[in-house]
Amino acid sequence: MSILIKNIELNKVKKDILIINNTISKIDIDINYKADKIIDGSRKAAVPGMTNGHTHAAMTLMRGYADDMPLMPWLQQKIWPLEANLTEEDVYWGAKLACLEMIKTGTTLMVDMYHHFPATAKAVDEMGIRGMLTFAGFDFNQPDKAARYKETVQHYLHTMSRYSNRLKFAMGPHAIYTVSTGLLKWIRDFASHNGLKIQSHLSETPGEVEESLKTFGKTPAQYLESIGFLDNDVSFAHCIYLSDEDIQILADHGCQVVHNPASNMKLASGNRFRFADIQKAGIPISIGTDGTSSGNNLDMYEAMKLAALNGKVAWNDPTLWTAEETFSCATEVAETLTGFKTGKIEEGYLADLCLVNLNVPEMVPNFNLVSNLVYSANGNVVDTVICDGKVLMENRLVPGEQEIMENAALAAEKLVSSLHKD
Amino acid sequence: MSILIKNIELNKVKKDILIINNTISKIDIDINYKADKIIDGSRKAAVPGMTNGHTHAAMTLMRGYADDMPLMPWLQQKIWPLEANLTEEDVYWGAKLACLEMIKTGTTLMVDMYHHFPATAKAVDEMGIRGMLTFAGFDFNQPDKAARYKETVQHYLHTMSRYSNRLKFAMGPHAIYTVSTGLLKWIRDFASHNGLKIQSHLSETPGEVEESLKTFGKTPAQYLESIGFLDNDVSFAHCIYLSDEDIQILADHGCQVVHNPASNMKLASGNRFRFADIQKAGIPISIGTDGTSSGNNLDMYEAMKLAALNGKVAWNDPTLWTAEETFSCATEVAETLTGFKTGKIEEGYLADLCLVNLNVPEMVPNFNLVSNLVYSANGNVVDTVICDGKVLMENRLVPGEQEIMENAALAAEKLVSSLHKD
Repeated sequence: MSILIKNIELNKVKKDILIINNTISKIDIDINYKADKIIDGSRKAAVPGMTNGHTHAAMTLMRGYADDMPLMPWLQQKIWPLEANLTEEDVYWGAKLACLEMIKTGTTLMVDMYHHFPATAKAVDEMGIRGMLTFAGFDFNQPDKAARYKETVQHYLHTMSRYSNRLKFAMGPHAIYTVSTGLLKWIRDFASHNGLKIQSHLSETPGEVEESLKTFGKTPAQYLESIGFLDNDVSFAHCIYLSDEDIQILADHGCQVVHNPASNMKLASGNRFRFADIQKAGIPISIGTDGTSSGNNLDMYEAMKLAALNGKVAWNDPTLWTAEETFSCATEVAETLTGFKTGKIEEGYLADLCLVNLNVPEMVPNFNLVSNLVYSANGNVVDTVICDGKVLMENRLVPGEQEIMENAALAAEKLVSSLHKD
Repeated sequence: MSILIKNIELNKVKKDILIINNTISKIDIDINYKADKIIDGSRKAAVPGMTNGHTHAAMTLMRGYADDMPLMPWLQQKIWPLEANLTEEDVYWGAKLACLEMIKTGTTLMVDMYHHFPATAKAVDEMGIRGMLTFAGFDFNQPDKAARYKETVQHYLHTMSRYSNRLKFAMGPHAIYTVSTGLLKWIRDFASHNGLKIQSHLSETPGEVEESLKTFGKTPAQYLESIGFLDNDVSFAHCIYLSDEDIQILADHGCQVVHNPASNMKLASGNRFRFADIQKAGIPISIGTDGTSSGNNLDMYEAMKLAALNGKVAWNDPTLWTAEETFSCATEVAETLTGFKTGKIEEGYLADLCLVNLNVPEMVPNFNLVSNLVYSANGNVVDTVICDGKVLMENRLVPGEQEIMENAALAAEKLVSSLHKD
């Protein structure tokens, strides 16, 4: 299979892009090649597919179910009761809807952490995007839960051969306050032994840091370092409350962080993500949407704008989070974060890219494409999505989208009504 | 002319909406009426057209021209030199592009403040939306400038009979640091005498407040009260740095405020807009995008999300700016702000409304339409726009959009190249 994109704006110049199988094979002027499919790139620009660095995909089912509440009542009264009733079928349709929304807004790779892993894996596999998927780990210090988790994880890892190479299994211990030291150490060893990446939540709220200081006499980062958990295969979502020493610890071990502006703002977790200090320490920074129960959508274009605008005003510095830096966090950092060779439109990279429509008011004038993408556009400017060398969306149409929306809506309705029956 | 919208979701119920001439004539189940046009509302919801409470429409021409800079170098090195070269033709195409973008994102009314008033008025008139339009007033304490401004304003007021009733002339003194006391008093009298509303900038930066204290021995609000400027026909954009007394002053005089989250965040002007205190004082709060040179787009759906999320995190309170409150600021407050009977879908109101598409991933599930509109959607969910009883957009198509984008792009290019020639 080959695709030739003709006459597309790429880094301010008109180019042709040739995709052979799942790889960007050639970028040049006037490529002469008998491709299976030719796409007219006029009035469009080619941009890398976005990477959603942290999400809980199937939570699309809970979009708009509970808003404007403080974190704990929101979790305890609204989210957890729903999650307790989630079936594998629910997660499947929730993840399908999430993939659909991501495709429609130009995201081709996500890092997911949730329950019912096989349902998410099946959904991502079918939808054609790329996923680094974890099975959310919790044991709450209960040995039976830890044992069950270990078994399940080993089983899931063995099932990975069922799926396309677009899927990568990773470890997803939820957080230091929900996973015991013993299980964290087992996860660290299991990941090292099997060459798996790890993603966890870290220092999301002041309460989490206080609790860690009380329990372990250490900040969350210090604690994880002390148990030998940190390495360059670990990424942490949130990281709002990092001390100078925490940042140095994460940098020393080659860890990465994922900033989730919508969720942090909406739940009022905090707005002072230490972009400049984390960047200066050499830590790669990605951007995520978090789940739609808190961030409400999966649009990485919106997430970029939120990250940049919130960062500027929170630190009283309009030069922070430039458009170019922000765009890079949502695209090319993906390679370090996930190990997939994606996030750049260069020869030899995976063919994960989007054509954005320049012929819409929010992209006019086109003085600076990256500024327009970060500050003016949202994900709806994406017209065509290619992932792993296959066209997933063209003219904003994704095959089967109607069925997905209907089944996801039904699943969400059933989920909530099952709760009210209890 | 009559329009009958059949089977549309309105406030969670399926209804028919009958529009006769420019008014919402009837809302009921199964309306039987031989309308000139029938619109199928299935899988859509009816929502009021948004009101953009503060913008500088023609600045679309400067979108993406200069970002990530501190306020003063940004103004002095980038924006002002461009503005000095702006022609009436430029403003016309910039305002046309702005109207197009607003229609495409569901805004039917804007409050504008800019140069070359006739160009903006012509553009708004042609595009079919509603506008409360001011001619930006500056005199910098120079009597000749003040005299010219007075003459021009009187002339513009006389020309208003040329335009549709959708246009309303209002007074737009730029700010207390650019307009002399004498001219402010003249504007106050002129507005009272002619029944015109007034909009100005107020307390946007700490520097503005300090300067006012130094010059007048008073905060900006105290100063304006002392010269008799304040009344219930005055609205102020920004208002980030209001003291308790300032809020009381504005409330006592029935003034209104317009919050501009994107601009305030991107320029790092400040994130602590005192929503709760201003609301408690009974002051009506609108939302605006400000010009696209600072906020980059004119999407009021995005502006709602920025207002709510930034407000929550800045005040560490996730219950602030609920979805319903935020939606109200962007819609029904318009009536007090502008005097147009718009912003609600009720019998007797002006027929300024949009049909939003419920059949897109970001609107699924539909537990809470207002939450989905504020937190998940952007303006691209708008499928159909009706203003003053006329269909301005259907199926996301606005007649003539191609010509507008091309001419605006050309104008922007010429503007920048004229600058580099100097």
